[in-house]
Amino acid sequence: MRNIQLTKRQEKIIEIVKENEPITSEAIAKQLKLTRATLRPDLSILTMSGILDARPKVGYFYSGKSDINVFRDKIQSIKVEDIKSLPTIIDEETSVYDAIVTLFLDDVGSIFVTSNDCLTGIISRKDMLKSAIGNIDINKVPVAVIMTRMPNVIYLEEKESILEAAIKIIEHEVDSLPIVEKHKDDLGEEQLKVIGKISKTNITKLFVDLGIED
Amino acid sequence: MRNIQLTKRQEKIIEIVKENEPITSEAIAKQLKLTRATLRPDLSILTMSGILDARPKVGYFYSGKSDINVFRDKIQSIKVEDIKSLPTIIDEETSVYDAIVTLFLDDVGSIFVTSNDCLTGIISRKDMLKSAIGNIDINKVPVAVIMTRMPNVIYLEEKESILEAAIKIIEHEVDSLPIVEKHKDDLGEEQLKVIGKISKTNITKLFVDLGIED
Repeated sequence: MRNIQLTKRQEKIIEIVKENEPITSEAIAKQLKLTRATLRPDLSILTMSGILDARPKVGYFYSGKSDINVFRDKIQSIKVEDIKSLPTIIDEETSVYDAIVTLFLDDVGSIFVTSNDCLTGIISRKDMLKSAIGNIDINKVPVAVIMTRMPNVIYLEEKESILEAAIKIIEHEVDSLPIVEKHKDDLGEEQLKVIGKISKTNITKLFVDLGIED
Repeated sequence: MRNIQLTKRQEKIIEIVKENEPITSEAIAKQLKLTRATLRPDLSILTMSGILDARPKVGYFYSGKSDINVFRDKIQSIKVEDIKSLPTIIDEETSVYDAIVTLFLDDVGSIFVTSNDCLTGIISRKDMLKSAIGNIDINKVPVAVIMTRMPNVIYLEEKESILEAAIKIIEHEVDSLPIVEKHKDDLGEEQLKVIGKISKTNITKLFVDLGIED
């Protein structure tokens, strides 16, 4: 994919063709009060670039091929492994209070929970807030009691695109997703090892990077 | 701005020109093992689209004009008013406990705080969490005590672009920003009225919309 800058006249020609297709070059020239010879280079570039279709003895059509989504191509080519952050991980037995302290120390929004180094859950700021104002002793209760537990944890694998990550974040209304590697344990059961994190912050940063990139 | 799909041969020509500029059409044809006549339409479209520059008796140059950032143009043309959400607003006198309840009821991440309908602060999930585990009576203490207070609240105005919003969110490490309208009060002092909100969720949603748009 390449992007080209069309001239105002070329944009105007596209508008005329869109509204009047099929339309001959004479008719376009007449609308623009120009000669056919003057228009020839413009019509050449518009047909060669695939924006217009020309059919002999009929005229020009608008093909719409120019509307290819460059942005989609780009964010489908960026994988979650390319922009992942370090995950904050705690063991299931950690108290809710210690999880909250970890949240502030690591300056993150969500914490992943593991047992024997395998993903078992995720705990958000809101989960912690609910516990903190609830009737539980956050110094004693372990995070395992209040976390969102597997298989309800949505996750990503390294080769997924950042577009897929953003879609999962929006669909499941979460702030961040763990990136996992799948392994089989000795009993042949699938285990998930957390190797990274993608959050709305990563997406927003990428949005800025793509927007200010030269 | 228009996007065109170049053929593999046209992309190959661009690569050859980039590495060898200035280069004549004969030399390009030789590298591709094609005749000059075969290449002529490709070279026409590449020069007319501004991707290559042709100088008589010298050869072709790569102009780089094709690298215009379509994505930047797009997200600079989208204004925060176009995708803003409804803000959740509470009065300064509201207790921290009631603010937390409002957070869950409205399913939001931050709450804007006003006094006489003018923006005076913002309160995040982490501000609430800190209070909830701290030594204060969240049923009695008003949010005014724990909020981030003006002039330290970063805000947006309706006509700012979504790119500027994303940059402010990342630079100031916040989850959401109020969109305000500025007024003068009877004493001529500037007052800010909250009319909307832009959060990392809005940015992530826009990222998805731009990515899956046809």
